[in-house]
Amino acid sequence: MTFSNAELFPITAGVTAGGHLSIGGIDAVELASEFGTPLYVYDEATLRGMCREFVGEFTSRYPKTTVAYASKAFINPALAALAEEEGLGLDVVSGGELAVARAGGFPMERVYFHGNNKTSDELRMALEAGIGRIVVDGLHELDLLNRLAGSLGLRQKIMLRLSPGVDPHTHAKTTTGILDSKFGISIDTGDAERAVREALVSENLDLVGLHCHLGSPIFELEPYSIAIDAMLTFAAGLAPAGLELREFSPGGGFAIGYVTSQLPPPIAAYAEVITSALKARSGDLGLGEPRLVVEPGRAVVGRAGVALYTVGAIKDIPTVRKYVSLDGGMGDNIRPAMYEAVYEAVAANRMREPAVETVTLVGKFCESGDYLVRDIALPVLEQGDVVAVPSSGAYAPSMASNYNLNPRPPIVMVGNGSARLIRRRETHEDMMRADVWQREAGKDPAGD
Amino acid sequence: MTFSNAELFPITAGVTAGGHLSIGGIDAVELASEFGTPLYVYDEATLRGMCREFVGEFTSRYPKTTVAYASKAFINPALAALAEEEGLGLDVVSGGELAVARAGGFPMERVYFHGNNKTSDELRMALEAGIGRIVVDGLHELDLLNRLAGSLGLRQKIMLRLSPGVDPHTHAKTTTGILDSKFGISIDTGDAERAVREALVSENLDLVGLHCHLGSPIFELEPYSIAIDAMLTFAAGLAPAGLELREFSPGGGFAIGYVTSQLPPPIAAYAEVITSALKARSGDLGLGEPRLVVEPGRAVVGRAGVALYTVGAIKDIPTVRKYVSLDGGMGDNIRPAMYEAVYEAVAANRMREPAVETVTLVGKFCESGDYLVRDIALPVLEQGDVVAVPSSGAYAPSMASNYNLNPRPPIVMVGNGSARLIRRRETHEDMMRADVWQREAGKDPAGD
Repeated sequence: MTFSNAELFPITAGVTAGGHLSIGGIDAVELASEFGTPLYVYDEATLRGMCREFVGEFTSRYPKTTVAYASKAFINPALAALAEEEGLGLDVVSGGELAVARAGGFPMERVYFHGNNKTSDELRMALEAGIGRIVVDGLHELDLLNRLAGSLGLRQKIMLRLSPGVDPHTHAKTTTGILDSKFGISIDTGDAERAVREALVSENLDLVGLHCHLGSPIFELEPYSIAIDAMLTFAAGLAPAGLELREFSPGGGFAIGYVTSQLPPPIAAYAEVITSALKARSGDLGLGEPRLVVEPGRAVVGRAGVALYTVGAIKDIPTVRKYVSLDGGMGDNIRPAMYEAVYEAVAANRMREPAVETVTLVGKFCESGDYLVRDIALPVLEQGDVVAVPSSGAYAPSMASNYNLNPRPPIVMVGNGSARLIRRRETHEDMMRADVWQREAGKDPAGD
Repeated sequence: MTFSNAELFPITAGVTAGGHLSIGGIDAVELASEFGTPLYVYDEATLRGMCREFVGEFTSRYPKTTVAYASKAFINPALAALAEEEGLGLDVVSGGELAVARAGGFPMERVYFHGNNKTSDELRMALEAGIGRIVVDGLHELDLLNRLAGSLGLRQKIMLRLSPGVDPHTHAKTTTGILDSKFGISIDTGDAERAVREALVSENLDLVGLHCHLGSPIFELEPYSIAIDAMLTFAAGLAPAGLELREFSPGGGFAIGYVTSQLPPPIAAYAEVITSALKARSGDLGLGEPRLVVEPGRAVVGRAGVALYTVGAIKDIPTVRKYVSLDGGMGDNIRPAMYEAVYEAVAANRMREPAVETVTLVGKFCESGDYLVRDIALPVLEQGDVVAVPSSGAYAPSMASNYNLNPRPPIVMVGNGSARLIRRRETHEDMMRADVWQREAGKDPAGD
């Protein structure tokens, strides 16, 4: 049996005979009971399915494609291992993400290092680890990296991240490819040309290609073809100067559905527009056949993840609003408070009951901005009910905080009818581990 | 020597002979060098000075006042110990904050437990710890707490948090005292009266008073007197039913200066309006002299804290904007991205140089919303310069995340010319400590 907004849930989601949500063949209410709430559940079939869909849709159209998973959407060692098994590359944006990739056994030659302000320590760590590509974000970094690589006796493969001046029409906080951005080297200002010429004469750097990224999430397809056109035209103009475009990346930004009223294009549509534009323009411009690198993050993990919460306090203000408080909130998912992000939700233990009233789902954090879903129609909820919020796999655990000193939730991976914990719930002791005072005083970090 | 925006910095801030910012008698540039950046520095003199100013301004006008520090602004065991030494009470909003209070040796009878959705586990933990007051937020919690206290053979002192329906004109995300709020028991709907009557007959609960909280930060004074009027009028109406107002709290919300163009009223002004309204109305209404509980959070720690960053990449887009990238950002201070919060900043190693250009200070996080200060006039900055952001003590470390897997910064306390680490920088290993996979596989969590 399926349900009305199943397309936002993992592909294995269903309803049990008892009327409960199931994910990966497991009763979500039992998961909530076994692991406690708030709980994040990732469906292995959806994760692997999305990896394969990206690889399949792109390589069937353009065999020389690398699909690199963008870690910032969510990474831990188990996820890194899964991405490795699926043959993906991996984007990291910090020494911490690089460390997790290593802990997960991810091969360093398939890792790309992004970021507008990598520190010297991070660059050195990446060089020493034998990282595949460093995606250089500015002239300062180019010079710094050349010196660091030289000091280590290395020649590092790099790409240059350029700013093509294309607006993808997403949220202002996540638009990155326009001229007025901290990211990338601007084509318009002439800095991109300077960077290419400098990279070509940097003896410790091997410039293998160009990169851009427009923002996220992008529900339209046209910005990709416009950006590819701008990037390849730029590359062709510098071929006489010695630029050989062996690799090219239009970044990521592939959208997912958060609500059934706004669903993104299928991966095949993104693949079609990107590979068509690349083939057509690289052919026209005599650029050969560069390796294509695409970088999905949200699109790989977003739909795979479901957040489970338990209903606590209920406050009904007649003619105004009914607030249903959950045991998580802005600490584990800051996207509603931060981006006014919209989500749907279901009552995981009342999947067969009709939606009969409109409520606002809020969290337990001491702030009015702490809400999860506003004005959603649900069955009548009671204390102890389990609420499931789909499309929660991306940018929820990765942006989680200990605000109000609430521990961050555990994460389980479900697949083949079993669940395994890939991240345990934090303890009060975890949250005080970096506090120096109590350690020096030799005090017990509180009985809990 | 002082400087132009010194009033936003700790009271000990000054400029050294070498033209560096100093805090607590210590050169901030040397702190950055010794502890690394990003770094949060708290000035002990400012912290204690603010505690004493609150206690002094309130008790000189109304001796029966308790000043309870609102932990959610920022707490760790060292801060809890300092608040205890200053004779303050302590507000906590979770089991985690309660655990930290205990680790810091804070006496439980001076602790107040707030929150719209305390879990059964948290309530039980608080009861067993012998907590001073539980500030009950709804009818459901009243019933739950009465049963839990009974099962433990305890009689718990409580206050009721009411929603008086007053708009304090602050940010919508932090306005909490209006009718349409998840917080508090509404007077308008009749729920508050029901809650008082129920509390009075709950045999395991001792109703000592009423509480409200309007929001934060509140730059105006009038909302406090309006709320006090509404709350005391309500209390007087229920005196015949047996309500004895032994304690009363108008909450907190006291503002601080983030920019010199918007400074809050002095603490004395808040104290004057609150104590005057309380004395006048409780006298008029024959309510005797209830103990007053005020709950500053931001106002105690905000000005005491300064964030230090090091300048990295600089991107100049002529006629558009100059981006100066720092080595922190939305991971350690999400307030600009979240609330469009405004800050000022100084070049800590160029305090005597004039501000000659307008730049935008951004962080190292992979998101365009990751900025700290937009369009600020500063001396010409270079890589390696140290930038100090004042007014960073509240809601920055407490809301920090590991987004992009960047470790959360260390915190030092400065005072009497010395600095002591009260929280060390997180390591890559810390960030993977809860990841189960690598532990089970017995892998080394990455060399860093």
